[in-house]
Amino acid sequence: MSTGSALLAELIEALRCLPGVGAKSAQRMAFHVLERDRAGARRLAERLGAAVERIGNCRRCRGFSETEICSLCANSGRDASLLCVVESPVDQAAVEVATGFRGHYFVLLGRLSPLDGLGPRELGLDLLAERLREGEVKELIVATNPTVEGEATAHLLSQLAREAGVRATRLAHGVPLGGELEFIDRGTLAHAFGSRQTLT
Amino acid sequence: MSTGSALLAELIEALRCLPGVGAKSAQRMAFHVLERDRAGARRLAERLGAAVERIGNCRRCRGFSETEICSLCANSGRDASLLCVVESPVDQAAVEVATGFRGHYFVLLGRLSPLDGLGPRELGLDLLAERLREGEVKELIVATNPTVEGEATAHLLSQLAREAGVRATRLAHGVPLGGELEFIDRGTLAHAFGSRQTLT
Repeated sequence: MSTGSALLAELIEALRCLPGVGAKSAQRMAFHVLERDRAGARRLAERLGAAVERIGNCRRCRGFSETEICSLCANSGRDASLLCVVESPVDQAAVEVATGFRGHYFVLLGRLSPLDGLGPRELGLDLLAERLREGEVKELIVATNPTVEGEATAHLLSQLAREAGVRATRLAHGVPLGGELEFIDRGTLAHAFGSRQTLT
Repeated sequence: MSTGSALLAELIEALRCLPGVGAKSAQRMAFHVLERDRAGARRLAERLGAAVERIGNCRRCRGFSETEICSLCANSGRDASLLCVVESPVDQAAVEVATGFRGHYFVLLGRLSPLDGLGPRELGLDLLAERLREGEVKELIVATNPTVEGEATAHLLSQLAREAGVRATRLAHGVPLGGELEFIDRGTLAHAFGSRQTLT
């Protein structure tokens, strides 16, 4: 990109830190905001700066929060007997938006992956064990991803729950809504077949 | 989006000022930078802020520039006898990247569109006329878009060039490289047929 402005070239390069944004889109974005939406760009710059500086992790659930305890953990209206364990803040947001879940969360910030140096300590499992020992949690809902590492993590979490005498549950596997059997992978189909339920 | 952080929700909303970014992508971008690339996000915030504050328009060509005269206009190595007129800075960048053009540019920052209040004055045509009167420019390359308004603008530009005794040229219309005749619109095909060239 060679235009009359070095700052513009730097902006285009910086935009590529966003996922799914390549050279072309970055260029389009830079020109768009400079030509048509400088107010939006100024607001974005401020909020991005503020978010990076001030959003840390909640001390209780490890989710994103700009305060020591996030608003979900601090909300006494939520059911403290349900604790949903997810791998990342984006999974937490997905569960929060899609389901009617009104309990609390615990965010692992990763999944068990010894090769990447992610063990029980990095996933905050000591913090989780302590939380279970508090005695308030009655059900640990394991919502890790259905990948090999996610399953290994789920296994470890169920052990943790057993030790603390807490019931552990796992999200159901099966045919996704709107999916067609023909196009569903064999593993999922076998799982859905094995876990078939009585029609009522 | 309800997570434990209000700043995060604000960031997601602000990201939507970028073209092609809807609610889902904005969420994905926000979580991505916060989880994996805070350094990149910090850099983006700084550069976006700097670009918005400091990039204005070159006094000579009206293209983007953080200095009074942009680096393209200030570059004495470029051919001052060629002046390429484009509608917007993004078109200028496209010509600069795709072609071997080493002359100067003039950016209209719009196209003739009386209904939108864009007349000769808004397009800086007085500035352009003055530039042509300087006598250095020998060829005015009209590179407005091949839309109705772009064509009207091109017509006005050719008049301007005639008055100043400068030769005006227009980008060739025709079949795009890699295009298939079957899928090309009738207008373009008719134009390409009419402007057919002798094979050498």
